[in-house]
Amino acid sequence: MTTSVNGVTLHRLDLSEEGRGTLTAVEVDRHIPFPVRRMFMVYGVPAGEVRGAHAHHRCRQFLVCARGSVTLVLDDGTSREEIVLDRPDIGVYMPPMIWGEQHKYSADALLLVFASEHYDANDYIRDHAEFVSAVRR
Amino acid sequence: MTTSVNGVTLHRLDLSEEGRGTLTAVEVDRHIPFPVRRMFMVYGVPAGEVRGAHAHHRCRQFLVCARGSVTLVLDDGTSREEIVLDRPDIGVYMPPMIWGEQHKYSADALLLVFASEHYDANDYIRDHAEFVSAVRR
Repeated sequence: MTTSVNGVTLHRLDLSEEGRGTLTAVEVDRHIPFPVRRMFMVYGVPAGEVRGAHAHHRCRQFLVCARGSVTLVLDDGTSREEIVLDRPDIGVYMPPMIWGEQHKYSADALLLVFASEHYDANDYIRDHAEFVSAVRR
Repeated sequence: MTTSVNGVTLHRLDLSEEGRGTLTAVEVDRHIPFPVRRMFMVYGVPAGEVRGAHAHHRCRQFLVCARGSVTLVLDDGTSREEIVLDRPDIGVYMPPMIWGEQHKYSADALLLVFASEHYDANDYIRDHAEFVSAVRR
């Protein structure tokens, strides 16, 4: 499913629920369109806190809210969209050069992020004006 | 860190805790010794339920308990060890041909499993006696 933000897409993951618990699965190539080199999870975020607030030159990401809820703000320099992630079987693909923020973490929220690159401090654009001018170049 | 079970190793993940929440990261090559092709998460497992109870011919796995706690039983056909996973910055590597069970899921437990292969029903050995004889062949 596409969004109004350039290249950002939503993906329904596999979910199998039975008496013995629930299993949610995501596969590289089938859901995640890049080789995964890093996964991180974010949790224990105080109410009112905003995380993210950067773009990546190169890194592609795929976000899943495994528990609780979080609001993503995604911005391609022209269009801006909010996506409420509140179920574990939805994934959001973010190509490079998309500004991302995460707002309104619920107390129990656990956000998983799959990334196409190892951590690289030089890949971050942390200034929104700089991001917008980089996008327009 | 090694265990008494053949090829099973424990890995300390990156954890960064600050006022804005906690971030735990795991990297392919640095922590996970295989390309990740699938990730699944298991949660909502009723108390007393046992999950897993199989081995894989080929699939390698890396397990992280992102929330709550779960007890892994790992078995190479000769040695059997229990590992209590109760913190999100520990990962357990399981090579192929290791029998794995998960016991004692806490009510809030969320187990993440990174796998080297897409789902393949033919890769499972679901009978313990068959597993033991396959290991000894």
